[in-house]
Amino acid sequence: MDPYVIQMNSKGNLPSILDTHVNVGGRSSVPGKVKGRKARWSVRPSDMANKTFNPIRAIVDNMKVKPNPNKTMISLSIGDPTVFGNLPTDPEVTQAMKDALDSGKYNGYAPSIGYLSSREEIVSYYHCPEAPLEAKDVILTSGCSQAIELCLAVLANPGQNILVPRPGFSVYRTLAESMGIEVKFYNLLPEKSWEVDLKQLESLIDEKTACLIVNNPSNPCGSVFSKHHLQKILAVAARQCVPILADEIYGDMVFSDCKHEPLATLSTDVPILSCGGLAKRWLVPGWRLGWILIHDRRDIFGNEIRDGLVKLSQRILGPCTIVQGALKSILRRTPQEFYQNTLSFLKSNADLCYGALAAVPGLRPVRPSGAMYLMVGIEMEHFPEFENDVEFTERLVAEQSVHCLPATCFEYQNFMRVVITVPEVIMLEACSRIREFCEQHYHCAEGSQEECDK
Amino acid sequence: MDPYVIQMNSKGNLPSILDTHVNVGGRSSVPGKVKGRKARWSVRPSDMANKTFNPIRAIVDNMKVKPNPNKTMISLSIGDPTVFGNLPTDPEVTQAMKDALDSGKYNGYAPSIGYLSSREEIVSYYHCPEAPLEAKDVILTSGCSQAIELCLAVLANPGQNILVPRPGFSVYRTLAESMGIEVKFYNLLPEKSWEVDLKQLESLIDEKTACLIVNNPSNPCGSVFSKHHLQKILAVAARQCVPILADEIYGDMVFSDCKHEPLATLSTDVPILSCGGLAKRWLVPGWRLGWILIHDRRDIFGNEIRDGLVKLSQRILGPCTIVQGALKSILRRTPQEFYQNTLSFLKSNADLCYGALAAVPGLRPVRPSGAMYLMVGIEMEHFPEFENDVEFTERLVAEQSVHCLPATCFEYQNFMRVVITVPEVIMLEACSRIREFCEQHYHCAEGSQEECDK
Repeated sequence: MDPYVIQMNSKGNLPSILDTHVNVGGRSSVPGKVKGRKARWSVRPSDMANKTFNPIRAIVDNMKVKPNPNKTMISLSIGDPTVFGNLPTDPEVTQAMKDALDSGKYNGYAPSIGYLSSREEIVSYYHCPEAPLEAKDVILTSGCSQAIELCLAVLANPGQNILVPRPGFSVYRTLAESMGIEVKFYNLLPEKSWEVDLKQLESLIDEKTACLIVNNPSNPCGSVFSKHHLQKILAVAARQCVPILADEIYGDMVFSDCKHEPLATLSTDVPILSCGGLAKRWLVPGWRLGWILIHDRRDIFGNEIRDGLVKLSQRILGPCTIVQGALKSILRRTPQEFYQNTLSFLKSNADLCYGALAAVPGLRPVRPSGAMYLMVGIEMEHFPEFENDVEFTERLVAEQSVHCLPATCFEYQNFMRVVITVPEVIMLEACSRIREFCEQHYHCAEGSQEECDK
Repeated sequence: MDPYVIQMNSKGNLPSILDTHVNVGGRSSVPGKVKGRKARWSVRPSDMANKTFNPIRAIVDNMKVKPNPNKTMISLSIGDPTVFGNLPTDPEVTQAMKDALDSGKYNGYAPSIGYLSSREEIVSYYHCPEAPLEAKDVILTSGCSQAIELCLAVLANPGQNILVPRPGFSVYRTLAESMGIEVKFYNLLPEKSWEVDLKQLESLIDEKTACLIVNNPSNPCGSVFSKHHLQKILAVAARQCVPILADEIYGDMVFSDCKHEPLATLSTDVPILSCGGLAKRWLVPGWRLGWILIHDRRDIFGNEIRDGLVKLSQRILGPCTIVQGALKSILRRTPQEFYQNTLSFLKSNADLCYGALAAVPGLRPVRPSGAMYLMVGIEMEHFPEFENDVEFTERLVAEQSVHCLPATCFEYQNFMRVVITVPEVIMLEACSRIREFCEQHYHCAEGSQEECDK
C-alpha cells in the first residue's frame, strides 16, 4: 500500500486552526510547529500485531485444497465439542444462566477479578487439603486464553523465555511471541504415552526462563500424566526454581481407568498458577469464563505477583457477569451423570477410533487417556507421495473430505490430531475413509516388499 | 519479599532426574548443565504488570477516610448505571439472552472477531450513507475496554505516543502505559463546554504520534461536541495525518436538545477506529460486549491494520457467545421508549443537579449534554482548608457520606465528577449535603469580604 497523500484542497471548507506549513502533495515543507511530522498517511500495524502468529490459522488458511464434492465433509479439526450438536451442555447450566438474568443482579460491572461470591464458589469447588485456596487466590478471566495471557504477562518480560510442550497447544506460542517472550520447546515422547523428556526439559532452562507450562491433560495428545511423572516434573521446577503455569482446562476430563492429579496438590514448594475454565468440562467454550488459581504456599509469588495479576485484570475488566452470576449453580447443580456421560462417550469414541486406526497400514495412533483428542503417527516412509503431515492431511481433505489437523500446527511432525467429540457414526465413517485413503497411498518402504505383500 | 531458598532436603523423596549441582541454601554451586541458573526463588512481576496503573484505583484505594456513620453513604463515583437498581435494562434485552440460551446454537467458539451474523447486525444498526460499513469492518470485543486495547495495540509501538483528552477516562492511560506507549494530554476547556484546545492539541503532534483519541460524548465531562467542532478536530487529524480512535461508547446518549454525530460520518479522509458497545446505552456494562468499527474509505489502514486487528483478536478470542447470539434481538427489538426514558431521566437529573450545585457558593458545575456525568468546578481559593480536589472529595465523604471522584482521577484538577444515574431523591439529597458541606467550609477569598457577607 502506498502512503496516501491527503488532498488538502478537498477540505478547503474546513477551518484551518493553525497556520502550519506541511508537506502536502509533494510541495516543499516549511517546518513550523509541526516538529517534523510528515503530512503523509502511513499507518502501519504495530510490532505486536505483526508478531501475533497463530500457527493453526496460518496452516489451515493456507490449505488450498477443496473437499471431495462427492463426500460430505467431516471436520475432525476443531477442539469445540459443540460443533456436532451431540454434546449439549446440561439443562442445569442453561437454567443457571436464565436465573442469573432474571435476578437482575448481574448486569453491572463486577470487580475486574470477578465477583467475590463467584470466586468463593471456585474455592469450594477445588477445595482440598493438599492445595488450599481462598477467594483471593482466584482470578476470573475471559476464557482460559485470557487466564494464560495474564499469567504469561505477569511472569515474563520481553527477552525472557518460557518452556512449552511439543507437541502442544498453539496459544502459548501465539501469546508469548506477541509479547516478545521467547518460546523454548520441551519434548513429549509418544513412545512413553507423551511423557515429558525430563532431561531435555531441564537442559533448556537458563537464567532467563520465566516459567514452565505444563498442560495436563494434554491438547493435542489426549494424554494424562501419572502422579509419579508429575512429581518428576515438579522436581525439575523445584531444583531450577522455575514457577509453573499449569494449563488444566481439561482437568477431570480423564477416562475411568485413569485419574487427574491437579499439579498443585503434589507440591508444597513450587509456586503454581493453574488455569481452568468452563469451556470443556461444561461444554460451553463460547461463554468465555476462565480462571487462574494462585497456589503459593511458600509465598514465593508473594503480594507482588498477586497485585500484578490484579492490575493486569483491570486492563479489560473481567468475564461476562451473567456467566459469573450463574457459576454457583453451574458448579453445584450440574449432575454427576452429565460429566460421566460425556466421559464415557469420549472413552468409547477414543477406543473406537484407536482400534480402527491401529489396524490401518502406515498409521500409529497413540491411545489417549483424557481430553478430546487422539494423536495418530503417520509413517511417512510408507507415504512417499506426501512430503509431510501437512500434505498428508491436505490430500485427506481433497480425496476423502476428512479434515484432521497436521501436527505441524502443534510444532510437531508426522502426526495428525483427531478430534473425538463427533457422533459415533461419523467417527466410524471418518476412520473408514482414513483407512481407504491410507490403503490407496501406502507404499512399502524400500527393502520390505515382502511385508507389504501380506 | 526476600528470595525464598528452597529446602532440597524436604524433597528428598522425589527422584532426581539430572545429576546437577546447584546453589542450595547457601552452599557453593558447581556449574553443570544449569547454565548459570541460580537455584533461588526469585519471581518478580513483569514490567508490564508494574506499568499497569489505574489512577482511579490508586486514588480511591488510598482514600483512608471513613464515611460519616450518621449518614447513609451515597456513591456518585462509579460510572455504572445499574448500581441503584433504578435503571434496569429492557425486558427485550433479557429475553434476547434467554432465547440465545434456549437455541443451543451459541455455546461453541465463535470466530475470534465475532459471529458473521452478529457483525452484520452491527452493520445494519450503524448503517448510514455517510459512513458505510460491511461485516468485515466490525470486530466484536470483550467490552469497550478490549476494543480500545486492540486499537491501541495495533496502531502504536512502544515508544510512540497517543493523544488523550484531559480531563479524560483513565483507561486510555492505563492501557497505553502498560504497553510502553507514551500518553500526551490535550486540553478540554470547561469555559467552552469542554471543547478541545485545538491549538494545543496540534502542538503535541510529532512524528511518533500514533493516534488521537476522541471521546464523544465525554466521560467524565458529559459534554457533546458540535458537528462544527468535530470537523475542526478532523481537520487537525487530516492535516497531520494522524488516525483517530473514536471512543463512542456513549454514542446516542445525548439529551434531547443536542445531537450525537458519529465522527466517521463527518470525514471521508481520516481513517477512524470507532469503539462502542452494549454497556451504557443498554445498561448492561457487565456483559462485556464491545465492538470496533473500521472506517477507512481511503484505504489508509488497508489490509494490514485490519489483519493486525484480526490477529490480535485471536489472542484471547472474542466476547461471550450468548451475548453475541442475543445481539440481533437486542438491537432490533429494544423499544425506542427504553432509550428515551433513560435519556429523559438523565436529562432531568442533570438539570436538577446542575441547578442545585450552581447555587452553591464555591462550586461551578458545567452543564452536561449527554453521557451520565456532570463535572463540577471547585473554586479552591474559597476552600483553603483543602489542598486540592482529592482532599475536598475525601472530606466530603468523611462529613457527608457523599462520594464523588476528584478530577485528579481524570488527570485534571479542582473539579469533581458527579454520576447522575442515581434516583432523583438520592440526587437531591446528595446535592443538599454537598451544599451543606460547601457552606460549612466556604471562605471568602482575600479582599472580597463584602461579597462573602451577602
